[in-house]
Amino acid sequence: MSFSLKQRRMFVKTNHLNSRSQEPFQLQDYLASRTAAVNRALAEFLPTATVKPGTIHRAMRYSLFAGGKRIRPALCLAAAAACGGDEADAYPLACAVECIHTYSLVHDDLPAMDNDDYRRGKLTNHKVFGEGVAVLAGDALLTQAFEIAAKCEGWPRYSHQTIILELARAAGSLQLIAGQVADLEGEGKRLSAGQLRYIHERKTSALLCCSVRLGGMSANCTPAQLKALTAFGYNVGLAFQVIDDILDVTQTSEKLGKTAGKDTKAQKATYPSIVGLEQSRKIAAQLTRRAFSSLKSFKGKAVALEALAEFLLRRDR
Amino acid sequence: MSFSLKQRRMFVKTNHLNSRSQEPFQLQDYLASRTAAVNRALAEFLPTATVKPGTIHRAMRYSLFAGGKRIRPALCLAAAAACGGDEADAYPLACAVECIHTYSLVHDDLPAMDNDDYRRGKLTNHKVFGEGVAVLAGDALLTQAFEIAAKCEGWPRYSHQTIILELARAAGSLQLIAGQVADLEGEGKRLSAGQLRYIHERKTSALLCCSVRLGGMSANCTPAQLKALTAFGYNVGLAFQVIDDILDVTQTSEKLGKTAGKDTKAQKATYPSIVGLEQSRKIAAQLTRRAFSSLKSFKGKAVALEALAEFLLRRDR
Repeated sequence: MSFSLKQRRMFVKTNHLNSRSQEPFQLQDYLASRTAAVNRALAEFLPTATVKPGTIHRAMRYSLFAGGKRIRPALCLAAAAACGGDEADAYPLACAVECIHTYSLVHDDLPAMDNDDYRRGKLTNHKVFGEGVAVLAGDALLTQAFEIAAKCEGWPRYSHQTIILELARAAGSLQLIAGQVADLEGEGKRLSAGQLRYIHERKTSALLCCSVRLGGMSANCTPAQLKALTAFGYNVGLAFQVIDDILDVTQTSEKLGKTAGKDTKAQKATYPSIVGLEQSRKIAAQLTRRAFSSLKSFKGKAVALEALAEFLLRRDR
Repeated sequence: MSFSLKQRRMFVKTNHLNSRSQEPFQLQDYLASRTAAVNRALAEFLPTATVKPGTIHRAMRYSLFAGGKRIRPALCLAAAAACGGDEADAYPLACAVECIHTYSLVHDDLPAMDNDDYRRGKLTNHKVFGEGVAVLAGDALLTQAFEIAAKCEGWPRYSHQTIILELARAAGSLQLIAGQVADLEGEGKRLSAGQLRYIHERKTSALLCCSVRLGGMSANCTPAQLKALTAFGYNVGLAFQVIDDILDVTQTSEKLGKTAGKDTKAQKATYPSIVGLEQSRKIAAQLTRRAFSSLKSFKGKAVALEALAEFLLRRDR
């Protein structure tokens, strides 16, 4: 049930960047190679579009391969590397998290939720396959995530059980889904900064943090390393969502590949709407600094995590 | 992470019916005691309605405690008993399967799918909580199923990994979801008996069969026992759906607690519409006989499974 040597080799057909060399870290190369490797692994894990019923597998693959940035898998792999692990061990977990992220987008875009026609510059799942199939494609991606994660064997400090619970809790009704519900219920209401943070922590930070933690677990990290990764993931996750809020008001739809200004239109509270644009930028920078400082104990082995945090702060889409 | 002695005692606060005694098996007592015990276990596993955000937990509990017959959990517990296992070990798996069943109903009832207003005599989830929350409540129940199942420790012959994979595959895009998609795509089309069987096998039989298999696994059953349970589950699952088709045309909505005649209205192929009512009844009886014959090797220890199969064939709602 676990992975063959051939499969493991396929996942890691990446340019191994020596994180301890003196060369400046090339994030674009890192992201390109990891995205390609994650895409190969996902393509291997999911039934092909020719498997009956073709509709569901086409719909699952449509959203999974719609040009996502693979931020969560990259964070998972980078965390494994920071803890001295073999990246190949982290692929099933990186892919499981990406399936959960994609399912949440497919359901979030539904007419009954955010009612979005575009995502990553392409028509949303329900616009292409219809609402019924889109609901089922999301369901299938969520289920697939557990099937993929179940294929890992577990590690001395982190049993198979711990891994599945970690994933289920991050995706469950106290985290990811709690964030979506609070987001839905907050529309048109005046929220406090605290209430908005509650939403962001769950809707975005929980799964990002889970990606980083799972990467560490796949390297059989120490409890101290897991604690540091958790602080990193939490802060990067929050910063990520603050930046998302900022981009929603400052960028065009073409640039974002999704409907810009939709938060304002849906009367959703955002950081810029509550504390202003300038203060939002300061908060994002402060959260990123906190994320950085939690990586100190990795003594230079966390260059990929640092570069990713920096990239997420500076991104313009 | 596993269960406390107190929790285990709570699950099994049932009248232990001695399956090997000469007394006739009292199915109604058995079902009542197991339903009560499963309900207690589910209530324990799920966050209460007071846990924030209350909406999602109210919505999850609304459908989970809407008077379901707990057929799948009962089959799971009965299979564990047939293999000489401790029923208490099977409760997390029985509850996980029930969460998956309930999630599939909540999503199936959505306007984008079957568009049903009533289920078990009560308004459907989306009629009470709105479509957005109903989608999320289904998502949360599916995720919760894996969290609950992850709490079991695994058994010598069936690792934790095997258990999670069993559940994920039965619920995934090749089984339960494949059935839903094929059902959706078959509306208004003339299907052959073979095509209808493909839908029934996946939409209904897969999860019923999984319930029985997981019960056996929780008793660390032998490979021969698992094979027998699989044949039993497959045939009972198919018979269950044939009877469902029959009841849809022969019973009133009041009796069923859901909209009767909806298959005809939705132009869905059913056994009665393809082979006629009389032939459908014969098929259901034949499938039940096959299920019975696969229990021979249990030599009288499978009385609860036999009684359940008989009950499912004779039911009128």
